[in-house]
Amino acid sequence: MVVLRSYVSGSWRAPDGEGAPLRDAVTGEEVARISSAGIDLGDALRYGRAVGGPVLRELTFHQRAALLKALASHLLEHREELYALSARTGATLGDSKFDIDGGIGVLFGYGSKGRRELPNDTVLVEGDVEPLGRGGTFVAQHLCTPSHGVAVQINAFNFPVWGPLEKLAPAFLAGVPSLIKPASQTAYLTARLVELIVASGILPEGSVQVVCGEPRDLLEHLTEQDLVGFTGSASTARLLRTHPTIVGNAVRFNAEADSLNCSILGPDATPGTREFDLFVKQLVTEMTVKAGQKCTAIRRALVPADLIGDVVEAARERLALVTVGNPADPQVRMGALAGLDQREEVRRSLKALLEAGRAVFGDPEHVEVVGADAERGAFISPILLRVDDTARAEPHEVEAFGPVSALLPYEGADQAVELAVRGRGSLAGSIVSGDHDFVRRVVLETAPWHGRLLVLNSENAKESTGHGSPLPALVHGGPGRAGGGEEMGGIRGVVHHMRRTAVQAGPAMLTSITGRWVPGTDRTVTDEHPFRKHLEDLRVGDTAVGGPRVVTLDDIEHFAGFTGDTFYAHTDEDAARANPFFEGRVAHGYLVVSFAAGLFVDPAPGPVLANYGLENLRFLAPVKPDDELTVTLTAKQITPREDADYGEVRWDTDVTNQEGASVAKYDVLTLVAKRPKHD
Amino acid sequence: MVVLRSYVSGSWRAPDGEGAPLRDAVTGEEVARISSAGIDLGDALRYGRAVGGPVLRELTFHQRAALLKALASHLLEHREELYALSARTGATLGDSKFDIDGGIGVLFGYGSKGRRELPNDTVLVEGDVEPLGRGGTFVAQHLCTPSHGVAVQINAFNFPVWGPLEKLAPAFLAGVPSLIKPASQTAYLTARLVELIVASGILPEGSVQVVCGEPRDLLEHLTEQDLVGFTGSASTARLLRTHPTIVGNAVRFNAEADSLNCSILGPDATPGTREFDLFVKQLVTEMTVKAGQKCTAIRRALVPADLIGDVVEAARERLALVTVGNPADPQVRMGALAGLDQREEVRRSLKALLEAGRAVFGDPEHVEVVGADAERGAFISPILLRVDDTARAEPHEVEAFGPVSALLPYEGADQAVELAVRGRGSLAGSIVSGDHDFVRRVVLETAPWHGRLLVLNSENAKESTGHGSPLPALVHGGPGRAGGGEEMGGIRGVVHHMRRTAVQAGPAMLTSITGRWVPGTDRTVTDEHPFRKHLEDLRVGDTAVGGPRVVTLDDIEHFAGFTGDTFYAHTDEDAARANPFFEGRVAHGYLVVSFAAGLFVDPAPGPVLANYGLENLRFLAPVKPDDELTVTLTAKQITPREDADYGEVRWDTDVTNQEGASVAKYDVLTLVAKRPKHD
Repeated sequence: MVVLRSYVSGSWRAPDGEGAPLRDAVTGEEVARISSAGIDLGDALRYGRAVGGPVLRELTFHQRAALLKALASHLLEHREELYALSARTGATLGDSKFDIDGGIGVLFGYGSKGRRELPNDTVLVEGDVEPLGRGGTFVAQHLCTPSHGVAVQINAFNFPVWGPLEKLAPAFLAGVPSLIKPASQTAYLTARLVELIVASGILPEGSVQVVCGEPRDLLEHLTEQDLVGFTGSASTARLLRTHPTIVGNAVRFNAEADSLNCSILGPDATPGTREFDLFVKQLVTEMTVKAGQKCTAIRRALVPADLIGDVVEAARERLALVTVGNPADPQVRMGALAGLDQREEVRRSLKALLEAGRAVFGDPEHVEVVGADAERGAFISPILLRVDDTARAEPHEVEAFGPVSALLPYEGADQAVELAVRGRGSLAGSIVSGDHDFVRRVVLETAPWHGRLLVLNSENAKESTGHGSPLPALVHGGPGRAGGGEEMGGIRGVVHHMRRTAVQAGPAMLTSITGRWVPGTDRTVTDEHPFRKHLEDLRVGDTAVGGPRVVTLDDIEHFAGFTGDTFYAHTDEDAARANPFFEGRVAHGYLVVSFAAGLFVDPAPGPVLANYGLENLRFLAPVKPDDELTVTLTAKQITPREDADYGEVRWDTDVTNQEGASVAKYDVLTLVAKRPKHD
Repeated sequence: MVVLRSYVSGSWRAPDGEGAPLRDAVTGEEVARISSAGIDLGDALRYGRAVGGPVLRELTFHQRAALLKALASHLLEHREELYALSARTGATLGDSKFDIDGGIGVLFGYGSKGRRELPNDTVLVEGDVEPLGRGGTFVAQHLCTPSHGVAVQINAFNFPVWGPLEKLAPAFLAGVPSLIKPASQTAYLTARLVELIVASGILPEGSVQVVCGEPRDLLEHLTEQDLVGFTGSASTARLLRTHPTIVGNAVRFNAEADSLNCSILGPDATPGTREFDLFVKQLVTEMTVKAGQKCTAIRRALVPADLIGDVVEAARERLALVTVGNPADPQVRMGALAGLDQREEVRRSLKALLEAGRAVFGDPEHVEVVGADAERGAFISPILLRVDDTARAEPHEVEAFGPVSALLPYEGADQAVELAVRGRGSLAGSIVSGDHDFVRRVVLETAPWHGRLLVLNSENAKESTGHGSPLPALVHGGPGRAGGGEEMGGIRGVVHHMRRTAVQAGPAMLTSITGRWVPGTDRTVTDEHPFRKHLEDLRVGDTAVGGPRVVTLDDIEHFAGFTGDTFYAHTDEDAARANPFFEGRVAHGYLVVSFAAGLFVDPAPGPVLANYGLENLRFLAPVKPDDELTVTLTAKQITPREDADYGEVRWDTDVTNQEGASVAKYDVLTLVAKRPKHD
């Protein structure tokens, strides 16, 4: 039998000894053996820090994003192989796609976000320049730099592909190497995933490692710069969180734990409405996808008391159509739990839940199974409970991590909120309703207890990805019972792997540190207009000064007539004077920026290809007839594109009047060509 | 003798029993007694959640910001009284101002940031709307809502006013009530501060409580929605972090611990340079302000090896001028430590440090004291150490929390970084240098170990607030030894007290939840132009549609001539065609937005007072001669001002061509009057 190897310190290592068996969830046959005995875990962390970190930090965000995208495409080509292995975990093809395609989707998502929302740089500047003194010689800015450690990613058994990839993608984009520690039960699938990653050669050496088997002394080697991302049970989260090394070194620890998520049916969603059907369909889907082994699954379905009978009936009808069995059989809708131990645990939890309510569908001890042996495989029936005594603790505290949900009745929005909150912190919740007042209230009052809330109704049903699907652009994690952590959420998940530092300096020094021109820094004015420079030749601080130009009353009147913008402040002296902000007629803001462009532009063909936008335009003082405008345009940020023969240049633009006061400030966004390549 | 009372559950409560004595740091006389015996701490937390939270959450960010500002002004009037009490903690007037004026400054800072950077609303929308489906019917946005708990603020003895206020301000602005737990040693000053706050009646009842004395069972009553902010020693931070209730409920825990902060002298800063003097002066200031009892103070001064002799000499000269003694004496530059226990601890730490190096200034056992008894008051001399063997552990690990710093030599930037990093996480660091390359490198390589980095040199020396001063706009906290937490940082510190929830919905539902118009939501077009509506009458979604208008080649040529913007893409057909983005001449972006204004504007005097800016303008497709433009302007966000008869309205603006494709999208920012008041 094959013993899973670990990829650490630059090579695949087999453990000492024979290891423990991992069994096929459907047949009970041995799939592989697992152990980390003899693997030097401290060395793996040192290797990640010494080899993976420095190489990753040399790459820009855009370069890292491109590698994630390339990796996603590569894995997409190999997903059939992963599906086959995934079936042995008890997963149907649909379940496998949820896990595998979902994980690849996270890579694509971060590849795309990294390119669109991060600079092509190694450092992330966050927020505005903060002025710290009136004279403008003392300013600050927050910088985010990658942690100089390893992101240790401790994953759960239920998503052997999505789990590691949703943690790897933001860490990698941040410039932090990953060490993946899969849950043993399904580690053979994660190990194969990492084999594909390593063999592809796409990611730099040292940026991904995997340890199969027990974590042993792994955590003892953590330093202040390492991070731990954990997904699993709340009790394990508590254990890890109090590990002396994690506490002693203030290691950043992020936990995502199973929670007792609720789905709330709105009072408007009576039988016959679209929302009623959506609720029942989603409930049954969440119960049966991955055989209910999802930390986001609906455990508590809150239903208006007068609708609970209808919901029971409709849900039973749908559940009766769910064929349980061997995922290889195409008629099977729900596969097996991940293993027999898991089934025992679900049955134990069900016992507790059944003290508070009764099963309205399914029998914990019996299930009809297609194409497999019901006892050798970890099969169990979907179980829908009904708990009328909602004051009981069990439905709000006991999680059966399988195809199990409980229906609870509520009376009025107050009680719906109260019951939702009794979960004491959830990853996800949903409200199925078209009633805006009900939804607004329930969302705002339950939001502090949820990492994610889905409102489902006829408006979004066609495109909704459902209650249980975390998405890379959205935060995943929740307060309290859900672990108090936060993963993904787009760039937030990247920043989580970085350190935020407030840097205080003079403007010129800050410009030199961040590579962005900070107001107050000397400008470079030369005879050559900066529009004549190719991207590589342009320097932050390069400046064009244009003007002065007088704005006459004729100009204002002409502009009003030409554009049709005859707003009274530009055309009616008396009315303008009555306005609290003006002393008489003023020039249009649009006229000011149009004249400014006329003053700063260098018109002949050259490297500047287009003005694609404008940002943060503020009109700071009125421009009166006969005011004289001067414009100062300074290269503020230069962002070459990795995959094009041009890049973005952001220009600080300051339009001043004859007294030197700014009348308008904004950023002009342009595309500027790189130097032509010679063949 | 007075026993300090606690303000809990709506009234001032005296503890049971006599309490323990608190002594004047200068004279050793008893100032007050302290105990929390008999105070019901669980009830205090419940009261904060039940009374303070709901009232605070009803207020908008702007209303809360205004209360912080009012409180700051009120405290400013009472600061003399606080200075007097502060002197009994051993503080000089300068020290007291650092603490008291600094704390009031944080209130002003948050008052101002809250008004400028947060909406006048109870909910904070964070980031852009995330599209989740191609059809536009499924979108998401992140909402931040206040935690429904209490912010328990455990403060250190060294800043009895600034400490509580820097934690209170962001919590209050977030809408979360505070429970202040001052360190016993200087609790009489914090208690008086809270008396002033409570008596002012400015903050809503329940939003501030104070517990004087031991925390007893306080933490056992924490729930998932409470937060703990701790400032103090690393060892206490570890204890609190592993408290079973904090761990069990995943209570958000933020620690700010003393750290071994470094200041690095650049190789350019030789004797005679401004930077050399700045370094020495700052070092001595940081050693002596608050008698060195600052968690941000410089503990390690890293100096180029060939300059260390000069630095020793210059520092000794300056230190010799520091008069130690009774803060009441105007010639005194440095007061007492907070108490005799504190002096014992500093002496113990010094013993360890002196094994690694030698004192070049000061004697731990003797100090000349002015106006006080050197033994009854907690006086100690400033002590400057020199540690030549930088490989020794002590200077990087042992913190003497008093007027103590160690000089360490380094050779080259590599070693400077290496030594800085040996602090294993610091709140603050500084680099005194004018050498851009040296600074850039040291900042970027040490940033992951620092919460804040100050670059000090002749560029910013006049306005610099110095190494040791945290500022409300900047993050305060650091990784590793510094506790791994983060406070303040402007609005970041507010968001820290809120819960982030990803809300997924259809656009119309999301509009209804957030109160901001989300693209995809129906627009309201009526006969009445929205520019005719006062702020109170305007509704999110109110829309004006203008056009179509044809843009002719004449228009483009005319605009080019009129504005002077003769960029070739508008004026030269062949050159434009050679551009990779255009098929021929195109209209100016500025022409498009100017015509758009002409199409959407309703010119007669009315509630719309001014267009004060534009945001996120993107030109999405070229406008060719004879294209026909239509503009759709939709009220997106309506922000009444608390203290003016107008407010801000943000309009979603979409300019489309004859094919319905968007050619430009942006937000127009306007000021709109409220309804006139009738007398």
